[in-house]
Amino acid sequence: MITSRDNKWLKLFRAALRGTGPRDGEPIGVEGPKLVEEALRSGLEADALLVSEGAERSAERILRAASESDAGIPQSRILHTTGKLFKSVAGTDAPQGVAALFRQRPWGFDDILRGPGANGSNDANRKLAGARPPLVIVLAELQDPGNVGTILRSAEAFGATGAVASRGTADPWSPKALRASSGSALRLPLLRGMAIPVILAQLRIAKVKIYAASSAPAADANASGGSLASQADLRDAAAIFIGNEGGGVPDEVKRAADAMISIPMAEPVESLNAGVAASLVLYEAARQRK
Amino acid sequence: MITSRDNKWLKLFRAALRGTGPRDGEPIGVEGPKLVEEALRSGLEADALLVSEGAERSAERILRAASESDAGIPQSRILHTTGKLFKSVAGTDAPQGVAALFRQRPWGFDDILRGPGANGSNDANRKLAGARPPLVIVLAELQDPGNVGTILRSAEAFGATGAVASRGTADPWSPKALRASSGSALRLPLLRGMAIPVILAQLRIAKVKIYAASSAPAADANASGGSLASQADLRDAAAIFIGNEGGGVPDEVKRAADAMISIPMAEPVESLNAGVAASLVLYEAARQRK
Repeated sequence: MITSRDNKWLKLFRAALRGTGPRDGEPIGVEGPKLVEEALRSGLEADALLVSEGAERSAERILRAASESDAGIPQSRILHTTGKLFKSVAGTDAPQGVAALFRQRPWGFDDILRGPGANGSNDANRKLAGARPPLVIVLAELQDPGNVGTILRSAEAFGATGAVASRGTADPWSPKALRASSGSALRLPLLRGMAIPVILAQLRIAKVKIYAASSAPAADANASGGSLASQADLRDAAAIFIGNEGGGVPDEVKRAADAMISIPMAEPVESLNAGVAASLVLYEAARQRK
Repeated sequence: MITSRDNKWLKLFRAALRGTGPRDGEPIGVEGPKLVEEALRSGLEADALLVSEGAERSAERILRAASESDAGIPQSRILHTTGKLFKSVAGTDAPQGVAALFRQRPWGFDDILRGPGANGSNDANRKLAGARPPLVIVLAELQDPGNVGTILRSAEAFGATGAVASRGTADPWSPKALRASSGSALRLPLLRGMAIPVILAQLRIAKVKIYAASSAPAADANASGGSLASQADLRDAAAIFIGNEGGGVPDEVKRAADAMISIPMAEPVESLNAGVAASLVLYEAARQRK
């Protein structure tokens, strides 16, 4: 039972649950029973589990999930603390008394192209891995962690093989993005902090077609203005770049893109929410691939 | 030049810019030069404009927009204050020095069905009004103002005729929802705070088909599981209910609905972001109506 504010574990939890995302090698902080359970079920390795007084029942479900997973939680790393101290490390206003620190998965560029499952514990996923052409979503300087999480959630729902968060994009493993992703950010193969020229070069080498998604059709001379389906054949290997909330896709991406995809819409709306725009293109890709 | 914290206009602005949305008859607080300009261009009547020292250039653009609009701003209601006092009433961390109070538009249920423009200043919209079958989006107990705003933005982009925010839904005219809507909440015909049984009855009387959108397909026995297009013909008069982030569409809506619409997606994702789910169905409606 941890009762001191200065406990080193509490410090680690506080940094992880209140930060803007872990650096390389640092643990990912996950808060709330549902998200912790999903992380365990997806095969992530837990460094530590923190349970507040009164949350023991949620913890039981989680320990069961841990015992059923490949990874598990060492008994000595199941830590208990008071409600007050838990609140002092939590990142939410109404904490639910369960949090965990997880090890980062060492995803590589191949995983992004092949999809989840090759190293995971889910049999259905393992069968899928490698069986479908790459569908990569690239977040190009997206600033809102809520949008980042929303896009990763849609990406997993619509069968993306992986995601890349460019340098300058809000961290998909930050507490806010994790929550918005409903756990998808912990399952989908994901690379963070890559420079855009490097992303473009890697995709070219892998022979993946590059699409720049725009939600402001009129401004782009290349835009066909027609339906999404008529603009892009997304059945083959494809990477979809989504740009920043204010400025859209960076110019270097527009220049390098094989095609622009613009979402047809009515005046006087100038653009859609970035999470919505990305989700529409991913939905269209899933529809075409069926 | 207002220099006292106790000035009655500053109090009004503070309440409007920091609240959770105006009551009937109270002004709508709008912050930031872009959003204020859009509100003016859409024909909303301004009660007052507040400009901070250093933001005079943005204010010029806005006054030009006001003089070109039907409504305008009376000279005596253009108020100036210091940067410090502006910050003390603003609802954002980095305020841009321009805010306004607008009168609520008295939308009726007919407007929701007929679409914007009948009373507006935009000629293109005026022509559209009444020319297309109703497409109404109903927000059923949505809690996140960001989602509410995102949905209204997509609704306008995809040609919805109007929106209804049920009792218990975050206020579409709250500062956060307004920002997320990029101004669409000020243009789209909109009713707030209606009880769900009343919404259902009004739609029935108007012979509008009722659809309940679900992003959790497997759980719903009625769900066909096929493509969106195969599940619903949205070319005729249609109202789409979107449910709460946690619980989905209320049971009373499911029971009353002519059909459920569920978005096909991959395991292990259980649901999509509510803003994304609503936007996908609206996009599908726009696609079918083209």
